[in-house]
Amino acid sequence: MRKLIVFNHISIDGYFTGENGDFKWAHTGNDDPEYAAFVAGNASGEGQLLFGRVTYDLMAGYWPTAMAEQHDPVVAKGMNNMQKVVFSRTMEKALWNNTKLIKTDIVSAIRKMKNESGPAMVIMGSGSIISQLASQQIIDEYQIIVNPVALGNGRTMFDGMNKMLSLKLMSSRIFHNGKVFLCFEPGK
Amino acid sequence: MRKLIVFNHISIDGYFTGENGDFKWAHTGNDDPEYAAFVAGNASGEGQLLFGRVTYDLMAGYWPTAMAEQHDPVVAKGMNNMQKVVFSRTMEKALWNNTKLIKTDIVSAIRKMKNESGPAMVIMGSGSIISQLASQQIIDEYQIIVNPVALGNGRTMFDGMNKMLSLKLMSSRIFHNGKVFLCFEPGK
Repeated sequence: MRKLIVFNHISIDGYFTGENGDFKWAHTGNDDPEYAAFVAGNASGEGQLLFGRVTYDLMAGYWPTAMAEQHDPVVAKGMNNMQKVVFSRTMEKALWNNTKLIKTDIVSAIRKMKNESGPAMVIMGSGSIISQLASQQIIDEYQIIVNPVALGNGRTMFDGMNKMLSLKLMSSRIFHNGKVFLCFEPGK
Repeated sequence: MRKLIVFNHISIDGYFTGENGDFKWAHTGNDDPEYAAFVAGNASGEGQLLFGRVTYDLMAGYWPTAMAEQHDPVVAKGMNNMQKVVFSRTMEKALWNNTKLIKTDIVSAIRKMKNESGPAMVIMGSGSIISQLASQQIIDEYQIIVNPVALGNGRTMFDGMNKMLSLKLMSSRIFHNGKVFLCFEPGK
């Protein structure tokens, strides 16, 4: 069975995205070499990326550009090459390289994908998808980078979740730039 | 100058209190001996506790009771004995042992208190106070325990803050019960 992983940056007030979709705050501290190596390692992995429409559009508007190639060459190459899936009922066609568009029900589509062969699936951003899937206990792992910033407002990954989700801390890593990587599995 | 410290538990979605003021989730894992020693150490400190009215009422309704004495004798003794301040324009009298009631403007009262002699001041809970003071750059340290749980809804300490607050991670500690203590100072 394929593993379903959430990977997101959050602020200390729990937001994976600030007001108006701002996530520049998550890109500070990239000059910490140990942290940069960690990020590059993630981006060169074998996973398949899963997105909601909003996050997909943001990512598709950045990673294929010359600016991304200049600022983050390693991560850009990884993001552009990796297998991607976007869930949207309204999108006509997904134009970013190596993307599959799925228009059917997310929960049943992902249950089916978990039973197929393939690499681990990684959800980034995509709060509305995460809160749906978290309630259904389909997510196997939450990889969260806690950033040293408070935003004051934004959206959490668990908005609208109808019950408390207990997690178990599996591993952690503290970076010199003040970011804290926490890896959780659901349950006690 | 006296130090002004925030000490709060948060969920991984950033809430220091769940819906309807629920914070039972913050009391899990107290059977971890290392964590229990950490909590008891905090409660036996020399600080002066500062509360908003809502958090004060919650605390004053628990710590002096026989139940608190039975479940958390060390912390209860500390909480009941420590100097406390409650900020409220509407409260008539503060009945919990060793509490001073302040009815004037919070920001100017705390600026004045910081210049008086005395122990460090510690704000617990009290989200509306914290977001006001954080904006004014009066808080010297944020001591945050990140709990392995997602609540789905609640209140953050920074609700209504009108600009981003950059923090610097000063120290951290990972407990076996999955709680993560993070200590921040404002600024980069």
